[in-house]
Amino acid sequence: MNFENIRKETLGLENLIHFNSAGSSLPPRCVTDTVVNYLVQEGQVGGYEQFEIEANRLEFVYDQISQLINANREEIALMESATRAWISLFYSLEWKKGQVILTSQTDYASNFISYLQLQKEKGVILEVLPQSKHGETCLQSLENRLQKGDVKLVSLSHIPTNGGLIQPVEQVGALTQKYNCLFLLDACQSVGQCPTDVQKIQCDFLTATGRKYLRGPRGTGFLYVKKKHFSWLNPFSLDLFSANLTSKNSYEVRQDARMFESWESSPALRLGLGQACEYASKLGIENTFEKIKQLGNFLRQELQQVNGIEIHDLGKEKGGIVSFTLKNKDSLKVKKELSQRKVNVSVSYKTSTFFDMEVRGLGDILRASVHYYNTEEEVLSFIETLKGLP
Amino acid sequence: MNFENIRKETLGLENLIHFNSAGSSLPPRCVTDTVVNYLVQEGQVGGYEQFEIEANRLEFVYDQISQLINANREEIALMESATRAWISLFYSLEWKKGQVILTSQTDYASNFISYLQLQKEKGVILEVLPQSKHGETCLQSLENRLQKGDVKLVSLSHIPTNGGLIQPVEQVGALTQKYNCLFLLDACQSVGQCPTDVQKIQCDFLTATGRKYLRGPRGTGFLYVKKKHFSWLNPFSLDLFSANLTSKNSYEVRQDARMFESWESSPALRLGLGQACEYASKLGIENTFEKIKQLGNFLRQELQQVNGIEIHDLGKEKGGIVSFTLKNKDSLKVKKELSQRKVNVSVSYKTSTFFDMEVRGLGDILRASVHYYNTEEEVLSFIETLKGLP
Repeated sequence: MNFENIRKETLGLENLIHFNSAGSSLPPRCVTDTVVNYLVQEGQVGGYEQFEIEANRLEFVYDQISQLINANREEIALMESATRAWISLFYSLEWKKGQVILTSQTDYASNFISYLQLQKEKGVILEVLPQSKHGETCLQSLENRLQKGDVKLVSLSHIPTNGGLIQPVEQVGALTQKYNCLFLLDACQSVGQCPTDVQKIQCDFLTATGRKYLRGPRGTGFLYVKKKHFSWLNPFSLDLFSANLTSKNSYEVRQDARMFESWESSPALRLGLGQACEYASKLGIENTFEKIKQLGNFLRQELQQVNGIEIHDLGKEKGGIVSFTLKNKDSLKVKKELSQRKVNVSVSYKTSTFFDMEVRGLGDILRASVHYYNTEEEVLSFIETLKGLP
Repeated sequence: MNFENIRKETLGLENLIHFNSAGSSLPPRCVTDTVVNYLVQEGQVGGYEQFEIEANRLEFVYDQISQLINANREEIALMESATRAWISLFYSLEWKKGQVILTSQTDYASNFISYLQLQKEKGVILEVLPQSKHGETCLQSLENRLQKGDVKLVSLSHIPTNGGLIQPVEQVGALTQKYNCLFLLDACQSVGQCPTDVQKIQCDFLTATGRKYLRGPRGTGFLYVKKKHFSWLNPFSLDLFSANLTSKNSYEVRQDARMFESWESSPALRLGLGQACEYASKLGIENTFEKIKQLGNFLRQELQQVNGIEIHDLGKEKGGIVSFTLKNKDSLKVKKELSQRKVNVSVSYKTSTFFDMEVRGLGDILRASVHYYNTEEEVLSFIETLKGLP
């Protein structure tokens, strides 16, 4: 892996320090080019016509994704976002009164809204698992809870939207397998950042976005569905792509993960997503994750030197998402001041991980998320900029 | 309206005859440029950062759409496709056993799959309305049916996916208002082709796509929801955009049409959609519709001269979608032969309007859909090409 080349292929890096890859990362040039070229071609030959010309390349996107997460191509559905992927699967699980969902305190508030909706409307029971000393979901508590036999789904964010935490997903997967319970993994911040091998994790479903660590286009995501579930799954909504009319009174649902897709999409964005997956696979997620962890830890270490900094990360082994506040300073104001100085970070609002923030007594916090294309020099320059803020 | 300029602004027209606007039309240059420029900027400054820079322009898309269909901006939700728009609304109507849906024989098969799904799973009753002599939904039958008081929804395609038919939507809207019943209008082929004024139509909900007659990007669509329904509507899925956590156990749903959106999108494609709406408004839909009707009728008239042609269009007043077959010729084969000669048409498969095709004894048919950017010369050239096929 040649980091010089990687930086040259990432246009935005010339002019700014981008520590916002957990929001939306800078794409490599080949991703933008792929999308742009396809769009220009659509204007030249027509949208449907371009789709036919590029049919093979568009089909290959399923291979590019499945290679990255070690799935089979028929286990992948292309979606317009991680949210669409998550929602499509979650709401299709045919919920009944009294069924239990287990989740963690650090899960994304958006998922909590969905849990609460089902709690209100279907009488589903939501339980938040205790966490261990470092913030990971407590595996012993999970096993104790699973032994009761009434849990339908364990739903977890692999790497939460803020904080360095990485959940012990392989151990969770082994337990859900052992107790015959479904495991839905929200891999929004992890795909592209750390290895996400669905065979090792043993999750039943996984959802991911293109725009974050994967460096794909906005408006893309995917859903992984383990093959053994095709036969009983029943998407809550259907269209002419996910099902076929077989008579005036009957239809047949597709028997692969694409039962969750619908007909219309942006082929341009899909190709960009495929390109991003291939780029990540070529670099090797194991390699790039090492670089991300190093940089994340370096950033935490250097931040400690700044007066008034408080770091809010959890986890024994930490990833590239670094959360902090500055004493007596409004996080949004700091973000804006950094932005004026060509440094991109983001703010995690209290509402985005409501439960965690509430328990820990936190308000809005700053989030600096580093990627493998960042450097130690950028970290040092960022620290100087922080120190120099009014 | 200067048609010379319009053709110059449409790059694909130089090299081909595009009679596939009901599939995916050729965008004007300004639409492609808008999307491409935004994507390039995202690569330069970051996805979230570009979103903040362009926040006003992205908000303005709601105005561009509402102006086109005479709605209020808060009545618009931006969606990734017409299907997503239609599905999001339709499945959120809290269906109960015995509730009646009225539709027409010419409706899109995709919608029928959804009706059948609810029939199977919720015991909803689907009824197909009789049609008048020319193929439009019979208004007298509709009124007779509505008088019984058990109809929850009238769901209609304004202009079906094939055939020249235009439904009498204003009369339908007046009846649904009179009998206090909901009216969902699938305007997939009509927005951008003919006037779709939601005040005149009096529909409760309308769904549309960007890629067809509107000349917007693929992967875009929108949903119109009449304001008076905000208070009782309950989207079947929620996220952090459509709802807010207000405590650990409660959430609040947005009180505008965006309750059907979710957080992540492609801002680039959205801007392209807004641009397409503005372009259409500037030309004036009344003007461009006249041109489309003229060309459609001219095409039908000229097609009659070709040996073995059978035209399958319905409707008293016809739009720009012309459906036909060639005696003893496979429609798909004809489409491919035309494509080799730089003429784009499409094939409407039997499955896409299953009910209508079945009743009329049709198989796969050819669909030539003209837009205002097409010309009579192109029609004549197309006819010559058709005659010259092997």
